[in-house]
Parts: sequence; structure tokens; C-alpha cells
Amino acid sequence: MFDVEYSNYLSVFNDGLNKTLSSLDGSAPELIRQAMTYAVSGGGKRIRPVLCLSTVKMLGGDIFDALDFAVAIELIHSYSLVHDDLPAMDNDDYRRGKLSTHKKFGEAYGILAGDALLNLAYEICFSKKNFCEKDLKAARIIAEYAGYNGMIAGQVLDLQNEKNPVKDEKNLYDVYKNKTAKLITAPLLVASELCGGAYFEELKKTGEHLGIMFQISDDVLDVSGDLSSIGKTPHKDELEDKLTSVKVFGLKGAAIKAKEHYEAAKSVLSTIKGSEFLSSLADKLFSRTF
Amino acid sequence: MFDVEYSNYLSVFNDGLNKTLSSLDGSAPELIRQAMTYAVSGGGKRIRPVLCLSTVKMLGGDIFDALDFAVAIELIHSYSLVHDDLPAMDNDDYRRGKLSTHKKFGEAYGILAGDALLNLAYEICFSKKNFCEKDLKAARIIAEYAGYNGMIAGQVLDLQNEKNPVKDEKNLYDVYKNKTAKLITAPLLVASELCGGAYFEELKKTGEHLGIMFQISDDVLDVSGDLSSIGKTPHKDELEDKLTSVKVFGLKGAAIKAKEHYEAAKSVLSTIKGSEFLSSLADKLFSRTF
Repeated sequence: MFDVEYSNYLSVFNDGLNKTLSSLDGSAPELIRQAMTYAVSGGGKRIRPVLCLSTVKMLGGDIFDALDFAVAIELIHSYSLVHDDLPAMDNDDYRRGKLSTHKKFGEAYGILAGDALLNLAYEICFSKKNFCEKDLKAARIIAEYAGYNGMIAGQVLDLQNEKNPVKDEKNLYDVYKNKTAKLITAPLLVASELCGGAYFEELKKTGEHLGIMFQISDDVLDVSGDLSSIGKTPHKDELEDKLTSVKVFGLKGAAIKAKEHYEAAKSVLSTIKGSEFLSSLADKLFSRTF
Repeated sequence: MFDVEYSNYLSVFNDGLNKTLSSLDGSAPELIRQAMTYAVSGGGKRIRPVLCLSTVKMLGGDIFDALDFAVAIELIHSYSLVHDDLPAMDNDDYRRGKLSTHKKFGEAYGILAGDALLNLAYEICFSKKNFCEKDLKAARIIAEYAGYNGMIAGQVLDLQNEKNPVKDEKNLYDVYKNKTAKLITAPLLVASELCGGAYFEELKKTGEHLGIMFQISDDVLDVSGDLSSIGKTPHKDELEDKLTSVKVFGLKGAAIKAKEHYEAAKSVLSTIKGSEFLSSLADKLFSRTF
């Protein structure tokens, strides 16, 4: 049941993304269109757009009315990965088993493809048909949660912590709340805004807990050895210098923390009518069983 | 008279920019706020926002209604310079006599500050008071002209031409029309959209001619030696590999081309009522006397 519903959202999203990519203006340089397409075609579970579409459905909205925003959020997620992989950032040659965008196309084109994806995300928002007040609110959420006080703040704090000897819980949470949780929360709040602000505060809490849980689970998997399941090989520098939940809480402590955030998310979701799918999605994200 | 009017627009713009920068959320990391502020505080004549505000004034609109877009365009211009200066791009250590942003803050923060400025530009658009249909059209222009088929297309073609042995007029114009002219044209068309689409086609042509003229003048100055007046020292690689108008047309030929585009811009402007300020601005940009 869950799998069928997930596949449906994924299918709607993939159609939307493919439509976006195939309608890129052919008069633009082929290389930038290729690099952009490559960067967003790396697979992954498309968790963010599925969160957006399924929440709209839960709230009684029209998922096709949310599709442009779901695509925009995934483009922003993709650009952030492209820039994160750059030599000056995490210096990753591979992403989900494929060459990272800058390794495939060269560093300059990696920078520009990332820029172009971020810009395209907003071009899509501005080009939405019948754009109205609720769309403006949804777009504002995306820009706020992706920006200097959202996801980018998390990227900055993450870099700063590499040089910071204080590996404590506060520093860790400042990174995780921003770098990961903001772009998990944004799709939920976009859905809320498109449905008149329904359950805004509840969904905000849900997104924060889910995002932190997701990141801590990642850390635990990194150390406990099942690297293939997250599709990314941490390189030496990252393991040594990065502030992670395992460093702060220990392996067992981190697993306990992940469970706490999972349960907190589930508890909030239990107050929202029709949240069975989101609740199952939280289960899957927690157990990493899909 | 021209100088007083320019100063007035500049003053309105600077107030808007300072308000934007001083209202950056204090809960965001100080480093990213500093890097963003540094990147947009490098001086320069603020040609793009002045073009936007003065064109709105010319068309009978309210310049304060255009201020958010003028700020957004300058943030986008600033981000593009930050990313252009990166080692993988033009590798410039200095910009207008100051350390470039990545040299001052480190490469990773240069990348992130650029991303944050681009994102903030759109956050400002979405946060505009009384956002309505004409604002949506104006914002769409910005995203289109800044994106993969606008300014970024020009950056891509510029890089590709470094490795392309064919140094011909078509390749040159493809770069100049996109890399420089798109973000000179956008402020004019934003103004038009805010004023009901007035003189849209004329302003589009004006922007293209002004932008190309501006870039060719730059090339001529680079070679004829008055480097200080453009505030940027071209480095060896750039001079050797970059496709420039001087390489295609020769020094004298390039000067003639600049004059042709200047005259074409003036000719179009002569058909627009009240275009004296824009026409004087074209004079100044052509002669580089301010």
C-alpha cells in the first residue's frame, strides 16, 4: 500500500521533472543543459518532492498544483549537492556511484550548473500557471529555507565546525537543523501554505525531527559500515574533521538520538488527520528499509 | 543635471541595499552575512539598479515600487562576480582593488556567499509588499535573464571559447549578448513590466546594444592600457585565452564596433519619450567619463 502510493507520487514528480528538463530552451548552450540534467538525474528516492506531494494530498489539496514547487525543491537539493561536492567544499568525486557533476564536466561547469539549477528553481516558481497569493507564500518558504539562514547556514556551520575543536551538541544541532532539516521541512510547509496554512506548526516540527533523524541515521550507517545503502563513500578528511552525531554521542548514543527524533516526529504526526502515509514514510526513513 | 539625477537614483538604491543587508537575520552565521555584505559592498557605479530606477521614472512609474527588484538584480550581478572570480573560473584575486570574496573569506565561503546572494535576490522578490501580477512578470524577467539561457549561458560560452580555436564574430556575440547584455537588459525590462509593458521591445534592443557596447569598451580599455579606469587587472591566462572583441576586430575595429552599438542604442532611445537621462547614461558608458 505504502509502496504503491510512493510510486504514484514519484511518477507524478518524475513526469514533472522530465517535462522541466525536456523543455529547457534549445538555444541555450548544450553543455549547461547536459550538466544540469546530469546533476538532477542521479537517482535517489526523491524524498523531498514526495514529502511535498503526499502532504498536499493529506491536506486535501491538488498535487498537480504543488508539482512546480516539488520540482523547484528538488532542483535546489540537487544544486546544493553539486556545490557540496566541489573540491573547495567536501571534495567528493562520486555521488551515488556516479561521477559528481564537477568531475564529469569540469569544476567551472559544476559551479555554473549549480548556479543554473538554483536559478531555474525560482524561474519555475515565477512561471507557475495561475500564480496567486498562496503560491507566493509557498515560494517564500522555499527561498527562506534554502537561503543564508536556512540550508546555506547549515553548510557554513558545517564547514566552520571542521576547524572548531568544540564538538558539542549545540554545534551539531545547529548544522543538522539547517543543512538537512530545512530542506526536509520546506516541502511540508509548502504543502501547508498551498492548503491555507493547515497544520503549519505541526508540519514544521515534523520536518525538523525527520530531518535531524535522517542525518543522524546517515552518521550511524557511515560508521556501522553499511555504506552502500546511503550510496556515498565518505572520504578520509570528512571522517576525520566533520562534526557528526557519532562523535558527539557515540555510536549507540547517536542511534538512541535518532530514535528519539523518530518518535517525536511520529508523535506530532499522530495529531494530524490522514497522516498514515507520512507516518509510514517516517518508519521507512528511520529503518532505512527502502 | 545628469550627475544630480544619477546621485539621486544611487542614493535610493544604496538605502534599499543597506536596508536589505542590515536586516539580514542575526540568527544566521555571522560569517555568511559578512561574506555576502563584503561581496556587494565593493563599490562600482551600480549601473544596473540605476538603469532600473531611471527607466521606471522615465515611464512614469514609482521608483520605490521598483527598488526591491533593483536590489535583487545587483545581488545577482554581485554573485556572478564572486563565482566568476573563483579559481576554477577566472581565478581573480582582486576585484575593484579589493581582495575578491573567495580570497578574503576562503574558497568554500566564496561559493556559498555567491549561492546565498542569488537565493536572497529571489527571497527579496517573493517578499515584496503588495506583490501583484506586474511584479510576477518583472521577477520572471530577472530569473530568465540571469539563468541558464541568459547570463549563465554567457559564462558557459565564455569558458568554452577559451578552448575554441574559432575566434569569430558569432562566438564573440553569443558571449557578449548573454554574459554582459542580459543583465543590462533585465533592469530595463523589469521597469517596462512594472509600467504595463511600455516600450518593451525598444528597451530590449537598447539593453542589448548598451551591454555589447559596454563589454567591447572594456576590451578596448584593457588593451589600450587604461586599466585603472575599469578597476580590474586582467591576468595572463585571461589575456591569452579569452575571446575578446579586440582579437576578432582588432583594436581599431573594436572601437568602431563599440561606436556602432552606441549609436544604435541612442537611435532606439530617441524614439522613447523622456529618454534624456538614459541617453546621457549611454554617452557616459560609451566615453567611460564617469
